[in-house]
Amino acid sequence: MRIATLSIGDELTRGQVIDTNAGTIASLLLMEGLRIQRHVTVGDNESDIIEALGYLSRISDAIIVTGGLGPTADDLTSRAAARATGRRLVVHEKARTHVRTMSGRLENLIFCPLNDKQAMIPTKSELIANPNGTACGFYFMHSGTFMFFMPGVPSEMSVMLRESVIPFILERVPRKRVIRSVSMNLFGPCEAEVDELLLGIARPEQGLTLGICVTFPWMKVTLRAEADSDNAADALLAPAVESVRQRVREYCFSTGDVSIDAVDAELLRMRHLTLALAESCSGGLIAKRITDISGCSAYFSEGIVTYSNAAKSRLLGVSEELLATFGAVSTECAAAMAQGVRLASGSDLGLAVTGIAGPDGGSLEKPVGTVFISLATADRCLSRHFQFNGSRDEIRTMTAWSALDWLRRYLLESDGGACLE
Amino acid sequence: MRIATLSIGDELTRGQVIDTNAGTIASLLLMEGLRIQRHVTVGDNESDIIEALGYLSRISDAIIVTGGLGPTADDLTSRAAARATGRRLVVHEKARTHVRTMSGRLENLIFCPLNDKQAMIPTKSELIANPNGTACGFYFMHSGTFMFFMPGVPSEMSVMLRESVIPFILERVPRKRVIRSVSMNLFGPCEAEVDELLLGIARPEQGLTLGICVTFPWMKVTLRAEADSDNAADALLAPAVESVRQRVREYCFSTGDVSIDAVDAELLRMRHLTLALAESCSGGLIAKRITDISGCSAYFSEGIVTYSNAAKSRLLGVSEELLATFGAVSTECAAAMAQGVRLASGSDLGLAVTGIAGPDGGSLEKPVGTVFISLATADRCLSRHFQFNGSRDEIRTMTAWSALDWLRRYLLESDGGACLE
Repeated sequence: MRIATLSIGDELTRGQVIDTNAGTIASLLLMEGLRIQRHVTVGDNESDIIEALGYLSRISDAIIVTGGLGPTADDLTSRAAARATGRRLVVHEKARTHVRTMSGRLENLIFCPLNDKQAMIPTKSELIANPNGTACGFYFMHSGTFMFFMPGVPSEMSVMLRESVIPFILERVPRKRVIRSVSMNLFGPCEAEVDELLLGIARPEQGLTLGICVTFPWMKVTLRAEADSDNAADALLAPAVESVRQRVREYCFSTGDVSIDAVDAELLRMRHLTLALAESCSGGLIAKRITDISGCSAYFSEGIVTYSNAAKSRLLGVSEELLATFGAVSTECAAAMAQGVRLASGSDLGLAVTGIAGPDGGSLEKPVGTVFISLATADRCLSRHFQFNGSRDEIRTMTAWSALDWLRRYLLESDGGACLE
Repeated sequence: MRIATLSIGDELTRGQVIDTNAGTIASLLLMEGLRIQRHVTVGDNESDIIEALGYLSRISDAIIVTGGLGPTADDLTSRAAARATGRRLVVHEKARTHVRTMSGRLENLIFCPLNDKQAMIPTKSELIANPNGTACGFYFMHSGTFMFFMPGVPSEMSVMLRESVIPFILERVPRKRVIRSVSMNLFGPCEAEVDELLLGIARPEQGLTLGICVTFPWMKVTLRAEADSDNAADALLAPAVESVRQRVREYCFSTGDVSIDAVDAELLRMRHLTLALAESCSGGLIAKRITDISGCSAYFSEGIVTYSNAAKSRLLGVSEELLATFGAVSTECAAAMAQGVRLASGSDLGLAVTGIAGPDGGSLEKPVGTVFISLATADRCLSRHFQFNGSRDEIRTMTAWSALDWLRRYLLESDGGACLE
């Protein structure tokens, strides 16, 4: 079944609001093995809506339309739908009852005659129930294409889609294909490198596809198997997942929707280790990420953001000689910060970063993006020099990610007592 | 000029990534008085791309295409563009030099032969420079339609759009109408409240429109005047801006793209005041925001994230009796934290927050979302109790915003010695 989506609204074509409905519909349909082949956005303009419906009906078996069903004058979808398909626009009694009932029920919504406009529906349509708002949806078949119309409010639309539209489509799809997917999250390599690593794993002709989605600074590799049965899909997927795992190895920090922060949290809990942080250039970003996780007080007691040299000396015990000799951005300073915060806090691990996030403050010897990360443990202090590129924001993000990933790798290996270097 | 956008990528038609490029392009063009008439999204499928280019070229004078220019096998845009317009795909020497230079320059990017694919450009194209990535953009004219092709990475795309594509289009548009707009950024009130406050300011029939765009937890009010000349547009806009200002008053923290962090930074600089932070439930988020601003070391020396009571006592001097009597989530503790960090750091101001971000840890007396914020100055300590709702992430975000906004209001008033309460 060829399915298209059409989003309607001036706020979208003006870029005032990001269209999330298109993505929501696509991902909800995909879970059922249905794909969106084409998406179109137009403004609140009747002739544009009519043209878009005509275009999409030529290349689709079903069109899912959102937006433009509101009570105000610039909501033109119902009229355009009627004109595009040679229907009349009439007051639909059931829709009127719905509008009036909902207007009375919804808080903060004063009933006004305008809402009656929402009861005007093209003839020869069936209603789509909207449990969360005044605007009824409707659908009809025209020239072999099903057209579904729903309001653009995401919370109303998604319920209507799940409860009415998707079940309706599924009843009409001859053979329901099963889709199974597994996502693995990677940090470290570039996209081209991962692409090369994973060469030959996808077999699209058998229904096994592989996608790489980059969200700076990490990426998600998704394996997807499409088959006639659960068993067949699983049989297709399992060996491919194993192959990806073997090839990406420690680049993979988690599967599914698990963040790198949550992985660190879980590892700290499992190892019964506590952590303290000393941050300079990342300015609290690592502490923010660690405390994003609920329950972090079990393994995290404190983080110190030392922007000035005086704070590094007073709070972390970094000696003035060290700062004078090596500078605040140095392996030596990072190591002293990590050891300092570990000792002062009484934590098992001290993680510290110092660097130059820019855009100013760089030198020939230590350009913007120079970052040192240190991890102090009971019996050693590991340090590493990183050189990042990009904006201040990108350098800080890479600094935090690299520190969190390094912690993860240490915690994974600390089990066997292996060293990171 | 009829302008269309085309986004290409399986991640979009699968709903794995929300398409922000379409909105970015629309809003950047709108600032120049140019409107997007049609937007289309297709997956990484050659025949779909060719079909969409054909469709859009029939109804548009210019098509702005993003996505599918990456180095991997599923990036098909260049080939599809060539096929759709009867061009050949050849190695473009300048593009190859660019790809190689950028691959060498970008850190953590191992040069691999795959990247050479990015130097394959349709014949009879001009390059669009990409200062931030390996993929060159290109454009050409086909059957009366300009087609622009850019990578889908938002940070690369937006620079190319601003620096190359928009100037190119503007040179070719006989601009009749002038658009002037002013945006004001608000924190505090809800949308309905702002809507009511601003009732009657817009006069769409005269070309004066008003839009409210909510981006949790703040919102942007944009006034837009469209007229025949610069003078007429300015004359329409100026009194409306003044009206909005008078009605929203201190809710407005900035205009344009200036963040609340930057406003605090500017005020601290102007007042020659220094700041230190003590954070509990916000876990470093405020420090992160303060240090987002380049040059913050001039007024910010340190931030202490004290998650445990022990850390509050040791680092901030909060007494154990106080913690035992009032608890860590209390006005008293917030005040002691603010005074403690101010004294220890030798800063002019100490800003502290303590609260319950949830989802666990709430009680009947102090439910999740209970937050205390204190600001210690040389001669007083101001404290306030907030009650927020929402997820852990939302509560932490609201906490940081409220603290930053409170600091802003204090700094604004501190000039005249007025008090916040």
